[in-house]
Amino acid sequence: MEFSSKLLERAVNEMSQLPGIGKRTALRLVLHMLKQPKEQTFALSEALQTMRNDVKFCKSCHNISDTELCEICSSPNRKEDIICVVEDVRDVMAIENTSSFKGLYHVLGGKISPMDGVGPHDLNIESLINKVKDGKINELVFALSSTMEGDTTNFYIYKQIQDYKVFTSTIARGISVGDELEYADEITLGRSILNRIPFESSLKL
Amino acid sequence: MEFSSKLLERAVNEMSQLPGIGKRTALRLVLHMLKQPKEQTFALSEALQTMRNDVKFCKSCHNISDTELCEICSSPNRKEDIICVVEDVRDVMAIENTSSFKGLYHVLGGKISPMDGVGPHDLNIESLINKVKDGKINELVFALSSTMEGDTTNFYIYKQIQDYKVFTSTIARGISVGDELEYADEITLGRSILNRIPFESSLKL
Repeated sequence: MEFSSKLLERAVNEMSQLPGIGKRTALRLVLHMLKQPKEQTFALSEALQTMRNDVKFCKSCHNISDTELCEICSSPNRKEDIICVVEDVRDVMAIENTSSFKGLYHVLGGKISPMDGVGPHDLNIESLINKVKDGKINELVFALSSTMEGDTTNFYIYKQIQDYKVFTSTIARGISVGDELEYADEITLGRSILNRIPFESSLKL
Repeated sequence: MEFSSKLLERAVNEMSQLPGIGKRTALRLVLHMLKQPKEQTFALSEALQTMRNDVKFCKSCHNISDTELCEICSSPNRKEDIICVVEDVRDVMAIENTSSFKGLYHVLGGKISPMDGVGPHDLNIESLINKVKDGKINELVFALSSTMEGDTTNFYIYKQIQDYKVFTSTIARGISVGDELEYADEITLGRSILNRIPFESSLKL
């Protein structure tokens, strides 16, 4: 692509470093900014800088936070003896949206993936093990994605804590609410049959 | 969407103002930035600010430029008597990539579109008419998109300059190179038959 302005070219190049944004999309976004009031671009640029500079990670659960200890960890209404282990900040948001979990979280920051060069020490696993060692945790809920890497990570953590008195669970896999059985994959459908629950208890959900 | 950090929320909100970027995509982009070195976000943010602040529009053709007069307008190798009228900066880039046009450009900055509240006076039409009035232009090539708005804009400009001695042309509409006839729409195929060219002249392309 030939640009008539070096400033434009630099802005497009920087934008296209973002995942899923190619040169053409970047150009479209940047030209859109040029049509909008200057203030809008300045606000965006300032928001990104401040965010990158000032955002903190909760020292307990490693969730994104504006304070040392995040709102969830510092809330008195949360059960402190049950911890949901998730991969990412977005997973916390997704589970929070369900209003179905009243415990605390622990954000690993990824999954163990030797292919991508991510080992256990690149993740927030040690601080999780330490929480279990302190003996105040009754249950760990594994809520990682059910991929090879997710399963590996679950198993790694499980191995580290199996000598401690803590109950471990994993979120249910099954047919999504509203889905047709005939279109479900065999593994999901198979698991949903093996892990069937008493009908009475499904009435209470 | 519930955010655990106000800074994150502001960054996501600003990002999602961009066209085609929703809240979820914005969150993905912003979280990606948090995983990258700070310098990358600062470089992006700085590039956007500088671009928005310092970018100029060529005083002759209204193309984006770092200088008063853009590279094309100030080049001695361009034919100054033929002007290609385009809607947008991207169209200049697209035509430049073909290396098939050696004249100058004129960027209107949009099309006449009463539905969107864009009238002739919102576009760079007057400066184009003035160029024609000065008598140094031999040919205007209309290269707007062939929509209702594009046709209206072409016609508006044509009406304004028809008393002056200037040849007007419009880019050829027809079947794309490599396309199958059977999948072409009727209007395009019909026009390509009506506007057929001598076989010998197609050999020279």
